[in-house]
Parts: sequence; C-alpha cells; structure tokens
Amino acid sequence: MKIGVVQFKPELFQAKENVRKALEISNNFDGDLLIFPELAFTGYLFNSSDELEKVSEYNAMTIEKWQEFSSEKDCAVIFGYPEKFMKKFYNSSVMILPNGAIKVYRKTHLFSEEKRLFQSGNTGFFVENFKGVNIGLAICFDWFFPESFRTLALLGADIIAHSANLVMPYCQGANIYSSIQNRVYIATANRWGKDKNDEKELCFTGESQITSPSGEIIAKAPKDGNIIIEADIDPMFSRDKRLNAFNDVLKDRKPNFYRLSQ
Amino acid sequence: MKIGVVQFKPELFQAKENVRKALEISNNFDGDLLIFPELAFTGYLFNSSDELEKVSEYNAMTIEKWQEFSSEKDCAVIFGYPEKFMKKFYNSSVMILPNGAIKVYRKTHLFSEEKRLFQSGNTGFFVENFKGVNIGLAICFDWFFPESFRTLALLGADIIAHSANLVMPYCQGANIYSSIQNRVYIATANRWGKDKNDEKELCFTGESQITSPSGEIIAKAPKDGNIIIEADIDPMFSRDKRLNAFNDVLKDRKPNFYRLSQ
Repeated sequence: MKIGVVQFKPELFQAKENVRKALEISNNFDGDLLIFPELAFTGYLFNSSDELEKVSEYNAMTIEKWQEFSSEKDCAVIFGYPEKFMKKFYNSSVMILPNGAIKVYRKTHLFSEEKRLFQSGNTGFFVENFKGVNIGLAICFDWFFPESFRTLALLGADIIAHSANLVMPYCQGANIYSSIQNRVYIATANRWGKDKNDEKELCFTGESQITSPSGEIIAKAPKDGNIIIEADIDPMFSRDKRLNAFNDVLKDRKPNFYRLSQ
Repeated sequence: MKIGVVQFKPELFQAKENVRKALEISNNFDGDLLIFPELAFTGYLFNSSDELEKVSEYNAMTIEKWQEFSSEKDCAVIFGYPEKFMKKFYNSSVMILPNGAIKVYRKTHLFSEEKRLFQSGNTGFFVENFKGVNIGLAICFDWFFPESFRTLALLGADIIAHSANLVMPYCQGANIYSSIQNRVYIATANRWGKDKNDEKELCFTGESQITSPSGEIIAKAPKDGNIIIEADIDPMFSRDKRLNAFNDVLKDRKPNFYRLSQ
C-alpha cells in the first residue's frame, strides 16, 4: 500500500477555498491512502461555538468532495474536521472509503483550550481494514498518552493515521519510540504556519513524518510548506511483532502487573 | 533529595572485587539515594544456571556491605543482582534503606536470552517513600513497555530508579518522552564496556541519564567509564501533573477507551 501524508496550511474559516486547494495538491497522488491534518480545511484557532457553527456548515460539502476524490482515485482519505452532533462539537477525523463509506473517530484526549469548545471523544479507538492494511485513527494530543497507540496496536493496526495540529516540539521524536515499542507504522500529518485572531497566535510545527515498525523515519516534511510525503506500507512488517528470537513486543506484555485502570 | 546514578562496569563473575571497587567509587558521595545498574556486581553474560548459582553465593555479602554503607551514610542504595529463591533465579533489583530494610523488585519484562536463565518477575511494580520522595523500581527492558513507567507514575512515583544493562540504543531517547508523558524523573543507571564468553560478546551502551518531569536531561554520563552523575530531585515538580492550564497528564487519561488488558 502506498500512502501519502499531506502537510497543509488552511486559511482560518476559508473551508471552501481550503478544500479546493487541497484537492489541487492531491490531484497527482496515485496511492491508496491520503492522510490530512487535524481540522484540515477549517483552521484551528476558534474563539467560540458560533465560529465552529459557521465552519461546520461546510462539513457536508467537504466530505462529499473527498468522497468523489476517493471514488475516482480508489484511494481512502482521512482528514480532521469539526464534527457537529446534537448541537455539540467534536474534534473528529473521518476515514472515507472509495465506496463512499465513512468512519468517524472523535478525539479522545482534548488539548488545552479545545476543552472549551469540543466534547471529549466518545467513539474510542478502532481499526479499519482497507486493501489488506489495518488502519487506526488518532488525533494530535492522543500521542501524548501512550495508551492510545498501544490500544491501536493491540487492536491490530498496521498503521496509525495521526492527523495533527501540533504546537509542542515533542511528538515527532516520541513517535520513533512508539513505532519501536508497538512495531507499527505511524503517519503524522501535521499542519504548518500560524493561526491568528485578535487575542493570540498559534504556531504549528510542520515536520510531518512517517515512521516504520523498526522506528526508522521513512519520510519527513520540512517545517513549512504544503507537501505530500509518501511511503510504502508493508503489513507483513507491522504484523511481525518479534524484536528478536525471544521477544515479541505485544505477547511479552504483562497486563497482570499493570495498574492502568484508575 | 540529592541522587547519584552510578555508571559502572563490573568484571564478569568477580562479585567480591566489583563490590569493593563500587564501594570505593561511592565513598565520597554525600547524597540521599545511589542507583546502580542491573546485575551491578556480577556481570551479565551468564551461560547457565550453574554460573548464576556461583555468583549468587555473593548476594548475602553484597547486600550486607551496602547495608553498612547505607546506614553509615544515611543514603538509600539500589542495585541489580541475580536473586535466588526456591532454587530459581530472578533478575532483581534491591532497595536498601539506612535502617537495614530491603525491598526487592523482580524484573517484569525479561530481555532475549534472559528468558533461559531467569524467571519472569512476580513482584509487580511498587513505590517506596524515602525522605519524602516516592521511589519506583524498574529494570532495563521494562522501559520498552510504556505500561511499566506509566504504572509507576500512577502509583505515585516521583522518580523511577531504572537499573539497566542496555545493549540497544533507544532507551535514553525514549526516556525523555516517558518523563514528559508521566511528568516523572527517570534515572537510568547503565553499565558500559563488554562482557565476553567463548561464544559471544555483548556491548553495553553507557550514557547513564537522569531526565526531569519536563523531559530535560539534567545529568548524563559519557559512553564509557565508571562515573557518578548527580541531580536534585524536587517531588513538588514531579507531583505537579499539569501540562498547561487545561491538561493534567494523569487525570486526562481515558481508561474506558484503552484496551490494554489482553
């Protein structure tokens, strides 16, 4: 399976134009799975539910456009968006399959002021098979909790599609070790550039990255710039959990001695 | 609390001489806790239970010597040793307190050929308070399973005393992120140099390291050489689990969505 990770900078609130630009960038991609950042086409720095309300009006259009793309290209697409449900908002990512099916993941671990705007995700983690590869979804700050990627690995994920709007500098380094510990591919699609409003400014860190089950960085984007980085995913590699002749990184776990339920 | 992490190279099988040398190195240390590597005074590369049997005869002497040291200096001491119990061996570390009390931790996750020689640890993880600081014990390959340090953090550890004989190059980097994710001090006492027998040779990676709850490397040893690196431990720092005004790295966990018991 050939995947593409799209590093992208949306203009805050300009959903329609952002989707147009992203479709343009993606037009020449000929792989099987395309992964975009968190809140990929709306921007991130919202001040109020009213602002979320406005941009969420473009969700249906956005999903429809990528369903067309997915169907035409026979390529799954994953991107973050501000999902509206029962008058509330989730920081979600959606996986769109070529047959039009959609699977929504709602961010489990909200970061900082997102707690003011979004509901804590209630879907939990899941894995979806596409073209023989098990794809797990996670969003940004989920990386900070090692339980997230571990859970996805235990659910059988070959690759973790990690849509992000990172502002801290740690995730790219940490993913190397998470890949090693779980023997799984991790594809972090990060945004770059800044979001500004009257009160503040947020700077996103770029350096989108794909790591292999042995912890190698197999593709990496620069700090800035719209760019698609690509890699081949071999599920036989990610399903071989042997570290050496004696150790299997999942079978050697000792859940009886973990105290993680509190 | 002032701690010392002793990077040390024992001569294989020479327990008596190794303890003598380690006591000599430690003589000028004036802190509160001294942490040694895994199998600190026996070496690591054993071929058989018979060889383990021989070196384990020095366990009682070794513990007694460090009890004397601990009592005289009012300094807790932690080191790895090949514990014998009911005719079987554990890869253990012991914490010795100035009043003579000892607490034994048996390595939960055995690495590679250790599985031929040692029983899988059955003590589980625990935390011991000394001079107001909660100290958790872990040994070498335990680091590879993020559940280990997470469990210790959830048990209230301020510092993880990580006795190691590392042969892979990943742990020192990974500990930076484990410190950040758990907001805990991690002190890895590693050995350096080689163990050799007729069949093979193992090379240990040195670079013993202490990381802070914010992921800073506050002390680091070179690749080679017997050396004590020191740092001050502030339990108020490790108990403040706030990452920012909205996030607490332990309270923000969502155990309902983790699937870690399998």
